[in-house]
Amino acid sequence: MSASTSSLAALAPTGRDARLLMRSGRYGGHTAGMAPGHVQGNLAILPKAQADDFLRFCQRNPKPCPLLAVSEPGDPALPTLGDDIDIRSDLPLYRVWRDGVLVDEVEDIGTLWRDDLVSFVIGCSFSFEEALLEAGVPLRHVAEGRNVAMYRTNLPTVPAGIFQGPLVVSMRPMKAADAIRAVQVTSRFPQVHGAPVHIGRPDLIGIADLGAPDFGEPVAVMDDELPVFWACGVTPQSVVMAAKPSFCITHAPGCMLVTDWLNHRIASF
Amino acid sequence: MSASTSSLAALAPTGRDARLLMRSGRYGGHTAGMAPGHVQGNLAILPKAQADDFLRFCQRNPKPCPLLAVSEPGDPALPTLGDDIDIRSDLPLYRVWRDGVLVDEVEDIGTLWRDDLVSFVIGCSFSFEEALLEAGVPLRHVAEGRNVAMYRTNLPTVPAGIFQGPLVVSMRPMKAADAIRAVQVTSRFPQVHGAPVHIGRPDLIGIADLGAPDFGEPVAVMDDELPVFWACGVTPQSVVMAAKPSFCITHAPGCMLVTDWLNHRIASF
Repeated sequence: MSASTSSLAALAPTGRDARLLMRSGRYGGHTAGMAPGHVQGNLAILPKAQADDFLRFCQRNPKPCPLLAVSEPGDPALPTLGDDIDIRSDLPLYRVWRDGVLVDEVEDIGTLWRDDLVSFVIGCSFSFEEALLEAGVPLRHVAEGRNVAMYRTNLPTVPAGIFQGPLVVSMRPMKAADAIRAVQVTSRFPQVHGAPVHIGRPDLIGIADLGAPDFGEPVAVMDDELPVFWACGVTPQSVVMAAKPSFCITHAPGCMLVTDWLNHRIASF
Repeated sequence: MSASTSSLAALAPTGRDARLLMRSGRYGGHTAGMAPGHVQGNLAILPKAQADDFLRFCQRNPKPCPLLAVSEPGDPALPTLGDDIDIRSDLPLYRVWRDGVLVDEVEDIGTLWRDDLVSFVIGCSFSFEEALLEAGVPLRHVAEGRNVAMYRTNLPTVPAGIFQGPLVVSMRPMKAADAIRAVQVTSRFPQVHGAPVHIGRPDLIGIADLGAPDFGEPVAVMDDELPVFWACGVTPQSVVMAAKPSFCITHAPGCMLVTDWLNHRIASF
């Protein structure tokens, strides 16, 4: 089943609608465009043995890893994000990792569930991108229907236990006045990466070629534009894969948890 | 009489102390460093015949011309900025202009006062510079004891009556992370120019050579820094001079009105 963004909004106008659709098994695609105005989150599920380290890692690196919720061990519920959430079935597609290697993609993780699994839901840039578009700041990758360009930097994260590695950033090209407005708008959203971490020269943060992103797809940067860089939720995924935990489940790219939270409600000021 | 910044603070710890010192005629120097934490303002005094146009000009161009107060015609008081202010004596040094030409510098304008004069007090960057330094953002021109570098741009202001002309900006070089922090900090201060108007390439706003400012003194921009540009209070002075009103009084550069307002009180959020 595939659908355009507008029909996705009609199909699932609320977070609960989106989750019930996933839970029914009738939809396994991307969540962009579903439940407009609702916060979506990245997912990482780890055994308790690694989860404590990972929680400290997120606490120490709030810009790439802004935690929206952490579950009780073995409990598939996340009541602060939505009172009916079952994390085993409510995302369209999951990735299963063993020893840092992707071993499967599945639409339901009920049969993989264990009493020691802890779910981490991490804010994603969909929320601030909605706010940027509402503020009249154009986003080229959205206009062109591409994934945002993402790059490994030479900026370190603060390690915790087995978790360490470089910051991954997303890049959006903007005219200077829009870049200034974007700092203002995204500063209001600390739970979804907040303000940019860098503006301007990519080489200063270890990016050699903007045309060759490490993740996502490249977009053009015009002569009168600045590249603007935000801490990216791919950072924790990259760090988790590098740590090679014995077992891990994540969302598949673009297949997020849709929550009951409203983007406008998580804005400061 | 001259004094270091720290002794100026001791000499005039409050706005009222500063104004009484000026009124006594015992001090004719710069006000930077006086009454730390208090808002200082640029001054423009115009006959009522031109003042109405100028008020509309300020209303239409709030980033370069953020009005802190406008007096009643002929009234030397500005009660909202300090209950004892006499604008004829409370600045250290004034400039007198006739037909757009500087004709005198005086420490008191009592003998020049007229029943039709209207005083405009316009926010200045001292307030946001204090906030930037408190936020740990280094300011090279402050560290080097220079006037900030200012440039005429090719960005137009919105005209009103006889008043029109290009935006003048001040430039402060910063590392990218500090530039982002500076957007956040100065956005909180709309009454003293607010957020930057441009970041990065000076040629995009009509500045050919950062080493040759139109006003103030140049500062170095290091290889890993971005030039960050703010709308500047020299804009209204430049516009007034170009309009060549028959009569006008301004503060002399660096010789501001020290108010009773606290910088922290004019911050948003």
